[in-house]
Amino acid sequence: MNTLLLSYPDLQDVVRRVGIDRLMDQLIDRLTAALVSYDADRTEIPVRAGFHYETPITGLIEWMPLLQKHSSVLMKVVGYHPESPDTLQLPTILSVLSKYDPNTGHLVAIVDGTFLTAMRTGAASAIASRVLAKPDSRTLGLIGCGAQAVTQLHAIGRSFRLTDVLIFDADESAMDTFPGRVEAFVSPEVNIRPVSLVDLVASSDIISVATSVPIGQGPVFQAGETRPWLHVNAVGSDFPGKIELPGALLQRSYVCPDTLDQAIREGECQQLVTDQIGADIVQVTRRAAYYASKRNQRTVFDSTGWALEDQVALDLLLEYAEEYGIGSSIPIESVSGDPRDTYEFLRQTDDRDRDDVAAPVKLRS
Amino acid sequence: MNTLLLSYPDLQDVVRRVGIDRLMDQLIDRLTAALVSYDADRTEIPVRAGFHYETPITGLIEWMPLLQKHSSVLMKVVGYHPESPDTLQLPTILSVLSKYDPNTGHLVAIVDGTFLTAMRTGAASAIASRVLAKPDSRTLGLIGCGAQAVTQLHAIGRSFRLTDVLIFDADESAMDTFPGRVEAFVSPEVNIRPVSLVDLVASSDIISVATSVPIGQGPVFQAGETRPWLHVNAVGSDFPGKIELPGALLQRSYVCPDTLDQAIREGECQQLVTDQIGADIVQVTRRAAYYASKRNQRTVFDSTGWALEDQVALDLLLEYAEEYGIGSSIPIESVSGDPRDTYEFLRQTDDRDRDDVAAPVKLRS
Repeated sequence: MNTLLLSYPDLQDVVRRVGIDRLMDQLIDRLTAALVSYDADRTEIPVRAGFHYETPITGLIEWMPLLQKHSSVLMKVVGYHPESPDTLQLPTILSVLSKYDPNTGHLVAIVDGTFLTAMRTGAASAIASRVLAKPDSRTLGLIGCGAQAVTQLHAIGRSFRLTDVLIFDADESAMDTFPGRVEAFVSPEVNIRPVSLVDLVASSDIISVATSVPIGQGPVFQAGETRPWLHVNAVGSDFPGKIELPGALLQRSYVCPDTLDQAIREGECQQLVTDQIGADIVQVTRRAAYYASKRNQRTVFDSTGWALEDQVALDLLLEYAEEYGIGSSIPIESVSGDPRDTYEFLRQTDDRDRDDVAAPVKLRS
Repeated sequence: MNTLLLSYPDLQDVVRRVGIDRLMDQLIDRLTAALVSYDADRTEIPVRAGFHYETPITGLIEWMPLLQKHSSVLMKVVGYHPESPDTLQLPTILSVLSKYDPNTGHLVAIVDGTFLTAMRTGAASAIASRVLAKPDSRTLGLIGCGAQAVTQLHAIGRSFRLTDVLIFDADESAMDTFPGRVEAFVSPEVNIRPVSLVDLVASSDIISVATSVPIGQGPVFQAGETRPWLHVNAVGSDFPGKIELPGALLQRSYVCPDTLDQAIREGECQQLVTDQIGADIVQVTRRAAYYASKRNQRTVFDSTGWALEDQVALDLLLEYAEEYGIGSSIPIESVSGDPRDTYEFLRQTDDRDRDDVAAPVKLRS
């Protein structure tokens, strides 16, 4: 009845051994397959809920549960604190993923969700872009150059032969450091350069928007000239009142939400009425050939973030951790020889060296 | 940005050092104080939600979040699988508690919730009994002799000078093992004996009911003769359709729910209309002198389980863990030097011995 704990160094080990490109490619493939085979009768994903507060700082902590019937429960807890990077040198998004066994309630595994959130959000944008953007897209615009922009570029770069990456961030330092933060995977031939917001919007084939714009202060750019085939991945809108895209752009675009109810409540779809909203990412992925007909018009992927994406990412990581024998196996839950014997350990003789018992078992790594 | 992990052996260490009686006494005191000072404007406790399933086995996994504004978030995940003791030798209730920092979303601590659930459920019954049962109560009846019965007896035994404990369980083996499971804290003078359900109900001053009766199959005993001052702690009802007490007993009792909305949805209060339900445990604890006037009549504490109880228990345990320096400090979340630099570790030279980095830091213990 032990729990697999992947520490952050363990996670780094796994990712290094797999290789970041291979991991992203497999995540995109797995997530595509999961969307195609998604069955709401087998996978229950309640709309997320959470605590939101404005004092002493603006933030929220949400829980995103998922039940894969008969096999696993995912509990994602995710914090969103947009002041963290500047004031605390911490990521805006911090998250931990827990996996439970629905046969017993046992905590099977616990692992960082911060890194996987960034990866799966990138993967989701890549999947939407593969269907809805022009296959010969060469110019990617990134509005917001934080942690999420890294994986947007990575995932979309694995899917299109990009030549130009146009970047914009209200914080100049984020633009300054961006090329260095993506050099691990971006070919030197790709031209990454800061541009004005107007130029970025006008010149991009694909745009990913991932900002920390406060509630009520969006959109982050004005509707203006765009490529007629522009595809936008709208990543940052994930809370009631938070929007990034101008309504005028949404209204002349085919809008694909990741999950409709949540997008209407928290995403760009807050700005639309139901009949202005297109098929969701499950339908679009499942009928990719059909929805590819939208490639010549403006399209938007309204990505609010969905626990299915996290589950696919978690399972992929855990498979590799198991293959490589990375992680620690730790008894956490109070389980005794007799399940009714709550205080059993109090009767045990206590002449052992407790440290031997308490020390987590380090698997080979 | 490390997380404190208390393994089960760590938890045992802490409990042994504190002493189980002292821990229970302090938990009762702390929970009493928390109920008296409870302020819904400072502490948000959403009604819990969860996954419930009937195949391949009957079970549920619920999440019980709590926000203590400005200071902490508790996420309790708890599984309820009533077949586990017989089929898997596992507790019906398995749980893990996580504590987060609402300033950042950081996972501060993770610890077993199974043991603490049993302790806090006992403590809550003791608190209700101290106000609503006769102070000279000598006979405790336990209907259901599983893991929860152990802490019901412990907590109530710390609060009353019990001479007799009458036990009943549909499973005889649970009755057989019960005296052995409580000998760590019960005085040898206390007479623990199995009796018929009718005798138990008729002869007890206080009864705690904690069974795994299936949905739709309650009550677990019939209304019959009782002491006119009988106080009942109804512990097991915690799901829509699950009830333990006969409606006739409820209707002639003063009923105190732990938290009204949840008790109406999941507890014995499912059987009552609103004007048959009395003050909740917060009010009863706060105005103990007033509600002591109910001691000469039949009373029921409808204990569905409340995250406030878990938070008090968790904080108490963590305070002792810190005092004793017990637990492991482990980096779990992906946090790099630059919070926007998701892939930072991929650029680091990798010539260190990774095991040095990956090994959790064991605190002194």
